[in-house]
Amino acid sequence: MRVGILGGGQLGRMLALAGYPLGHTFRFFDPSPEAGAGEVGELVNGSYDEEEALKRFADGLDVITYEFENVPVEAARLLEQYAPVHPNPAALEAAQDRLVEKRYFRTLNIPTAQFRDVDSRADLDAAVEALWLPAVLKTRREGYDGKGQRVLREPSDLDAAWSDLGDKALILEQFVRFDRELSIVATRSTGGDFRYYPLVENTHVDGILSRTVAPAPDVSERQQRAAEGYAHRIQTALDYAGTLAVELFEVDGLLMANEMAPRVHNSGHWSIEGAETSQFENHIRAVTGQPLGSTGLRGQATMLNLIGTTPDPADMLKVDASHLHLYSKAPRPGRKLGHITVRSDHLERLETSVAALEALISGTEE
Amino acid sequence: MRVGILGGGQLGRMLALAGYPLGHTFRFFDPSPEAGAGEVGELVNGSYDEEEALKRFADGLDVITYEFENVPVEAARLLEQYAPVHPNPAALEAAQDRLVEKRYFRTLNIPTAQFRDVDSRADLDAAVEALWLPAVLKTRREGYDGKGQRVLREPSDLDAAWSDLGDKALILEQFVRFDRELSIVATRSTGGDFRYYPLVENTHVDGILSRTVAPAPDVSERQQRAAEGYAHRIQTALDYAGTLAVELFEVDGLLMANEMAPRVHNSGHWSIEGAETSQFENHIRAVTGQPLGSTGLRGQATMLNLIGTTPDPADMLKVDASHLHLYSKAPRPGRKLGHITVRSDHLERLETSVAALEALISGTEE
Repeated sequence: MRVGILGGGQLGRMLALAGYPLGHTFRFFDPSPEAGAGEVGELVNGSYDEEEALKRFADGLDVITYEFENVPVEAARLLEQYAPVHPNPAALEAAQDRLVEKRYFRTLNIPTAQFRDVDSRADLDAAVEALWLPAVLKTRREGYDGKGQRVLREPSDLDAAWSDLGDKALILEQFVRFDRELSIVATRSTGGDFRYYPLVENTHVDGILSRTVAPAPDVSERQQRAAEGYAHRIQTALDYAGTLAVELFEVDGLLMANEMAPRVHNSGHWSIEGAETSQFENHIRAVTGQPLGSTGLRGQATMLNLIGTTPDPADMLKVDASHLHLYSKAPRPGRKLGHITVRSDHLERLETSVAALEALISGTEE
Repeated sequence: MRVGILGGGQLGRMLALAGYPLGHTFRFFDPSPEAGAGEVGELVNGSYDEEEALKRFADGLDVITYEFENVPVEAARLLEQYAPVHPNPAALEAAQDRLVEKRYFRTLNIPTAQFRDVDSRADLDAAVEALWLPAVLKTRREGYDGKGQRVLREPSDLDAAWSDLGDKALILEQFVRFDRELSIVATRSTGGDFRYYPLVENTHVDGILSRTVAPAPDVSERQQRAAEGYAHRIQTALDYAGTLAVELFEVDGLLMANEMAPRVHNSGHWSIEGAETSQFENHIRAVTGQPLGSTGLRGQATMLNLIGTTPDPADMLKVDASHLHLYSKAPRPGRKLGHITVRSDHLERLETSVAALEALISGTEE
């Protein structure tokens, strides 16, 4: 099939690399002529409100998907005239607005932190009154990698946070003292078949994912089932085809949904080496109507993000059991430039390699 | 690095798919505008004797490699003016002529079938006298997938074989009653570092590789070492950087070299899923001067070629533990259109899936 991908970043690039062996071809839509996915497929440049550019992109495509959740819903709806768009653009609507998303979770009986809609300074004061401090004030839209949020610890933090964010639609969330961050990645086929990856444990630094351990240690069967249930309810309700990620907080054993991403997700990159079928291949299988592949583990894996700068690739490749993925992006502080996955059947070997890579990565940051 | 690949078939395609994550970009040179690798990189069309086209291809490349052994040596030598060419073009000279190749094996103390140079009908009679029948008459150049060869069983077969092939430079080889066909794939880095894949067992049908089992069952440590020694001597003698395959006959436990391919090889395709680092990734690491990756096994794997036609991809993907690789080539009898690898940690599960796929494949052929 001729597959179109909205967005030409690393996720689009990895989707295409996983999809070529299945016999598909790829075209990307991205505002930037430098989009890294352009190296591995046709790149159509344009902005998402440019109907002519979207039409040029859609011409001759059999199916359209997207690699990021901030695709304007209108653009996705427009493209549905030309080819099926998977996942369902309704998933974009649910994921683009933190308030809508959290209400959606509640509707589906998925636990979340408590939250309040904040449209005015008076709303903020009332919300703080209701939820107590500490709490987190977030923009409803376009926050990612920790951007667009302020932690409120003291009543005196409110003024500064309000002056930073008060011109946008906001949500106040209870500050969750979580034990750890987990996520579940799941793929649903157009025919309603499901595949779940095991829960993974994520570590964020400065709001950006730094490390994923797969599978997450010490996860109970009950927790895995609960997380699968969340993904199942979301994907069923949205008649969703493709890969979805749900970020979770573990609090005293309970899993609370933090947010969802209606796409392949950074916390699923380990699956390229660590699972029988990667999240990328399963997404492509799903959106092209092919049967899904096994999400069974191949040993254990740890994924480390390369953010801002990267160590010398030769040094990283020398590390036993390491698998390098560079995204062909220019270095910039806070930018995800690549990732490296260590996969092994032996935990000790894996830990030795991860320690060596972490030393290389922190050496670069100094 | 900007990597140029001579040849735009499936091997070039799979080299690029393995090389993008390492941060490289790819350009292919191929006479055909339909070359399947063109989907995953820049394609320069031209013929190998067209100096202008070769120069256009070489412009701006950091390193050049090749995906097939019949690249004219003159073209490879010419390109060395613009960028390093790996493997050493001397490897092309050794591999393009069966007589030179067999003499080369003998020089390196690698056992082969007995052989005789045949330049005339009188030579043929003398060679048959010396080697006895049965024997195999082969063109010295451009034979592949069983083309350009005739088995001589009776003296009466000589006339027909001579009239078919007698206008070309020939070699007569002793007919080897082998117990099975094996091959070894090895990668050598520019720095002289070596990695060996385990011996695999190959089954040919009508002269075309049909199935590879990795690792080959019942291989002794001594046999593995012997095969590694052959590859080591060839790669050292040629100051070779990249992946090399040596096809072997097992006869009463002894391994005789049949032929070598100075490139990634069909009998190494299983390594995409079945080894820690695939033959493709190791080839790219080698020619770009990066450290090599582990060739350790990840379970067991069986690779089946899809020749002439392919079953419905959905049927193949439904089979447990299967990994499909289509080459984007138009169907044609005898043409390799793709392959499918079954990988598992459990032999029984693997065998069940292989049987299911073989049934699908033979169903298509009927």
